[in-house]
Amino acid sequence: MAALNRNTTCTNLVNRLPHKIALEEAILPVSIPLNETTPQIPQVADVPGAVLSPAFTSDVGQRLTDVSLRLQSMDASGIRYAIVSLTSPGIEGVFDAKQAVEYARKVNDEMHATYVAPHPTRFGFFACLPMQDPPAAARELERCVTQLGAKGALVNGYVQLGSADSVRYLDEAACEPVWAALAALDVPLYLHPRVPPPSQQRVYRGFPMLAHAAYGFGAETGAHALRLACSGLFDRYPRLQVVLGHAAEALPFLAHRIDHRLAVGVSGASGPHRQSVSYYLRSNFLATLSGVRRLSTVRCALEEMGEERVLWSVDYPYESNEDAADWFDGVEGLNEETKRKIAWRNAERIFGIPPCGL
Amino acid sequence: MAALNRNTTCTNLVNRLPHKIALEEAILPVSIPLNETTPQIPQVADVPGAVLSPAFTSDVGQRLTDVSLRLQSMDASGIRYAIVSLTSPGIEGVFDAKQAVEYARKVNDEMHATYVAPHPTRFGFFACLPMQDPPAAARELERCVTQLGAKGALVNGYVQLGSADSVRYLDEAACEPVWAALAALDVPLYLHPRVPPPSQQRVYRGFPMLAHAAYGFGAETGAHALRLACSGLFDRYPRLQVVLGHAAEALPFLAHRIDHRLAVGVSGASGPHRQSVSYYLRSNFLATLSGVRRLSTVRCALEEMGEERVLWSVDYPYESNEDAADWFDGVEGLNEETKRKIAWRNAERIFGIPPCGL
Amino acid sequence: MAALNRNTTCTNLVNRLPHKIALEEAILPVSIPLNETTPQIPQVADVPGAVLSPAFTSDVGQRLTDVSLRLQSMDASGIRYAIVSLTSPGIEGVFDAKQAVEYARKVNDEMHATYVAPHPTRFGFFACLPMQDPPAAARELERCVTQLGAKGALVNGYVQLGSADSVRYLDEAACEPVWAALAALDVPLYLHPRVPPPSQQRVYRGFPMLAHAAYGFGAETGAHALRLACSGLFDRYPRLQVVLGHAAEALPFLAHRIDHRLAVGVSGASGPHRQSVSYYLRSNFLATLSGVRRLSTVRCALEEMGEERVLWSVDYPYESNEDAADWFDGVEGLNEETKRKIAWRNAERIFGIPPCGL
Amino acid sequence: MAALNRNTTCTNLVNRLPHKIALEEAILPVSIPLNETTPQIPQVADVPGAVLSPAFTSDVGQRLTDVSLRLQSMDASGIRYAIVSLTSPGIEGVFDAKQAVEYARKVNDEMHATYVAPHPTRFGFFACLPMQDPPAAARELERCVTQLGAKGALVNGYVQLGSADSVRYLDEAACEPVWAALAALDVPLYLHPRVPPPSQQRVYRGFPMLAHAAYGFGAETGAHALRLACSGLFDRYPRLQVVLGHAAEALPFLAHRIDHRLAVGVSGASGPHRQSVSYYLRSNFLATLSGVRRLSTVRCALEEMGEERVLWSVDYPYESNEDAADWFDGVEGLNEETKRKIAWRNAERIFGIPPCGL
Repeated sequence: MAALNRNTTCTNLVNRLPHKIALEEAILPVSIPLNETTPQIPQVADVPGAVLSPAFTSDVGQRLTDVSLRLQSMDASGIRYAIVSLTSPGIEGVFDAKQAVEYARKVNDEMHATYVAPHPTRFGFFACLPMQDPPAAARELERCVTQLGAKGALVNGYVQLGSADSVRYLDEAACEPVWAALAALDVPLYLHPRVPPPSQQRVYRGFPMLAHAAYGFGAETGAHALRLACSGLFDRYPRLQVVLGHAAEALPFLAHRIDHRLAVGVSGASGPHRQSVSYYLRSNFLATLSGVRRLSTVRCALEEMGEERVLWSVDYPYESNEDAADWFDGVEGLNEETKRKIAWRNAERIFGIPPCGL
Repeated sequence: MAALNRNTTCTNLVNRLPHKIALEEAILPVSIPLNETTPQIPQVADVPGAVLSPAFTSDVGQRLTDVSLRLQSMDASGIRYAIVSLTSPGIEGVFDAKQAVEYARKVNDEMHATYVAPHPTRFGFFACLPMQDPPAAARELERCVTQLGAKGALVNGYVQLGSADSVRYLDEAACEPVWAALAALDVPLYLHPRVPPPSQQRVYRGFPMLAHAAYGFGAETGAHALRLACSGLFDRYPRLQVVLGHAAEALPFLAHRIDHRLAVGVSGASGPHRQSVSYYLRSNFLATLSGVRRLSTVRCALEEMGEERVLWSVDYPYESNEDAADWFDGVEGLNEETKRKIAWRNAERIFGIPPCGL
Repeated sequence: MAALNRNTTCTNLVNRLPHKIALEEAILPVSIPLNETTPQIPQVADVPGAVLSPAFTSDVGQRLTDVSLRLQSMDASGIRYAIVSLTSPGIEGVFDAKQAVEYARKVNDEMHATYVAPHPTRFGFFACLPMQDPPAAARELERCVTQLGAKGALVNGYVQLGSADSVRYLDEAACEPVWAALAALDVPLYLHPRVPPPSQQRVYRGFPMLAHAAYGFGAETGAHALRLACSGLFDRYPRLQVVLGHAAEALPFLAHRIDHRLAVGVSGASGPHRQSVSYYLRSNFLATLSGVRRLSTVRCALEEMGEERVLWSVDYPYESNEDAADWFDGVEGLNEETKRKIAWRNAERIFGIPPCGL
Repeated sequence: MAALNRNTTCTNLVNRLPHKIALEEAILPVSIPLNETTPQIPQVADVPGAVLSPAFTSDVGQRLTDVSLRLQSMDASGIRYAIVSLTSPGIEGVFDAKQAVEYARKVNDEMHATYVAPHPTRFGFFACLPMQDPPAAARELERCVTQLGAKGALVNGYVQLGSADSVRYLDEAACEPVWAALAALDVPLYLHPRVPPPSQQRVYRGFPMLAHAAYGFGAETGAHALRLACSGLFDRYPRLQVVLGHAAEALPFLAHRIDHRLAVGVSGASGPHRQSVSYYLRSNFLATLSGVRRLSTVRCALEEMGEERVLWSVDYPYESNEDAADWFDGVEGLNEETKRKIAWRNAERIFGIPPCGL
């Protein structure tokens, strides 16, 4: 017998939020050879220890290149607009600097031609950069932003220079031209995770690759972000914005303790930075919710970064648009206005996307 | 003119919570040579890049050994009882296994003789273990628990075997005797951070040592804890409890995403574990608030682990008892009963400390 | 095309929590005439201004008396056990004291015979009391608890004595025998809302009856609870427990301000009470979540009362068991252990219901 | 001995937030006789049952009129700007309509002349209105806003017409001219509590007056606000804003349940309103934190109303500026940007106060 005072059957209905914007959305290019990066693109395919479901990898493979399938999935999920970017490890995995410059240009042109030009109301892109040659990277950034309308750049962590284990982080002096260009063009840099360098993976050996992907990549990226903060970068460029995925890679949970540990050091000895990590977190970092479906995590990020700095995202196709949308659209415990900021208003403001008016 | 409707002057008064128990409290022994571990004990003294205030290091130096100063500070802070332990890197930094066995025994006898025997209502201790020789470590644990009343053991992460860069994590097969002994004796293991092995510190070079201490040590320890969880350890010993400091080293913020990443793997391929990381977090881990003075962090830990699994602590003398107490005693946003559980009730229950009745 | 990385379609699945206990669950008796109370039982039927959907009222009508339909709905909702009680206004609406005594006895015998005796593992009951004659009410309470196994008593607010507008609140001296009996028998009193006396309804006139039911009944009941607290009742009986529905009728949101307003009064002038309202709230009140499906409200109650004092409930059949269960079972933002306490462990402990072991 | 790693002594230091704006700030006029309202102004002086500390009442008495003492206290508390208003019961307590019109004009002129004109950067004012004569009230509002720069109006609940127990609520048809004027002038109405009409105070008799002030006044005002919402007022004037004190008088805690109770009614029968109470709460109500010093309450209001709709305030001189500032400035658990919105940015935006730029 159907109960009259009964509406559901072990499910909670979701009211789809219709105007969402997503910005950690991966694509695979056709214009460059994929086996010339280390590891090859997409990284998910050949990292030792990764034992992925074949159905998952085959589905991801198709979705990385199929534009109409992507649009179909965006429609089903209430995603109005996606800022796409080259999937990890990206150009950063190319050992030869000259080739990196050439490949970056090709991929950026392809992202514009395949996504943005035919679907200007649905897609934007983050430029990939040949960080092996920072002056060239700065020029490529400028070209992408001014000529192709790029919304900023996305870099996969450290750059390898000539060999897998020779790494350079973005706070090192050589990278200054890129930061100067980002500041001059007033666009953000998305600091995307990648697998840590081989020599640094001891703790992760004998460790499930998937846990590594969720934990180790983030720990590496969080450390990288701390390097940026402690380097004084944001004192030199106070308006600079760096986007971190996964609710800012645990920094909201940790920033306060880092700050109070730094306070027992000799003043100035902990680096040239002038402000606290917490200050930079609420002034120079933006967090996306790629891969995050947990209220406690979102609340912690909101409390430390403020609701103008948290942005929804998916990490399609490694994550499902529909699942990510169902979770976020349905979750309680966030004010409706806060949800709209996270879902689209913050992205509209930061990336100059035409406002939907809601 | 003093305003009548005015009680305070830019301060908020704190009502001291009087019965607190702390359990990440470091001591320095006199019974073993301190320069025979790598790095030497206490680690804070000689890590490259650490530029600590001389006043801080000198004060810490005194407090690591001065029992009456410690009791004085505990009294001023409302700390009824402290479980002390050998400061990092502890016995784990001794390269020679035989020496490690001898030193561990000496330190445990000293902790009992100097702290517990003369002040049984104020001090308990965690045994240090010669993890270089796990069967010997298991025997030492049993001796400490059954003869000296140790409350469990504290281990500083991986063990080095013969050289600084040869490391063994606690989930490796050789360590099984220690887990079996912990389970049989029904006492917890405190997994304390230490500096990551030298080869794994690339990302932290050119990085303030103090930020490293707050971030890098925790990232290493969080990875270590994940290794334990994914190894199936808690399926073999379902009642086993592992204590993590610093609000469980960001795992509460991250566990949910790790779980849903693991879910795309081939079943069983991510390790022999049978439950989710979130499940282990609320069944087999305990979190202390050593070094944590931030409501958003505490709330996230409470939400993921439950209020029976979060325990206040200080990390004296690296942190100030009085400051830690003022923050916790005064912070709003936690129910009074929750505060009492965190401050003493959970520790009373878990470590068999006589209840204060409140 | 079915997306592989897609699990849901605009719904979030709910994992049914299977052992729940509910305790604001209304029944309609057959052993007394329903039109001899004012308003008649069930109150929902004839309050001026209530324009209820006929389907709703007819369904409620059936469910108030149909035991097998009730059990069916409990099964579908994961409700192991319900403590039933006479629906509002109950015996409190009987103007004649002698009749009230007789009716209360009949209804209590009927609740025991119809619900508890045939289904001892599924039902308990709260006694109704003839508060018109407090000594008789105390005797009836003792009879119900000691002979029929009643879990306590449920009273619908003030008592009318001879006319609709002559009211007596439970803190008035005449009621002392009932409090003494509750304390001696160590069982709680559920203070259930009812419509405010007619003369006090000015602000609610021209007001939708349904909003009145959700707001005005609660405002009256919250005031009544404050009367109890300020009367010194809980100083006389420090272990006494009073259950409030609807997340304690907004008192968790308001208690702190009430306390700091009381603090500007002349000491003692605000009543004989010795503790703060906040203190009583976390020592002498229990809150059920009848009718509450909102995380912010639940969190506020948990923060002010503690997770040992918040208990799930439905208010069946005025609310749907299945809907209430779907919301609570599916809501994120509460720790799993907290949810189990709210869902069954607190009720097991407080009412002596055999534990399910989870 | 002074501990080196010790900074505080049972207090937590507060960093004063320097630009705060407060808007439930009471003044007492000299231009009208105070004993011609019922109860007389200030209401606190003669309500039966109020046994206030004489030091408190004498201090309040002075502070209600002393401008330099007020400025001194604002300076000490980091209050940049206060919107003052006539203290309760205000003009609403004048039984004669013609006199009400005359008194309102005098008080408004006095507030402008005494507070705003000599201190334009420190004070604004809410007009008082002779609601006994709504067309005159609308004209007075227009005069105050356009000629004296009033920031809106403040009304103390219902209006008494000729006798203490004849009351009219603001949703009644006669009041329409005032709503039309508010909408046309685009200024908010502050719905301030007052003591409920005598006949409605049964539940509060034998109840401490101070608890009544904190609970009963709020319950009355919350019901009044619900009347406005259910009357369809905000459907007729969708941009209209009504300010409620005390974190919106518990409506954030209750709105969701009211909505789901309304949903069982016959459509349209619960009043002409077209949206839910929750919708109005986040579209047409603003909440001040006058008298609120509790994180759980503030969080609940933020979650239901959004951080653009919660505004700090004091209720000076009934509350202490300094105490209210110390609590808010020092409380943890709110993001820094959120705090600035609550402390001044929202008020700057809503009332057109020159921004401080922070």
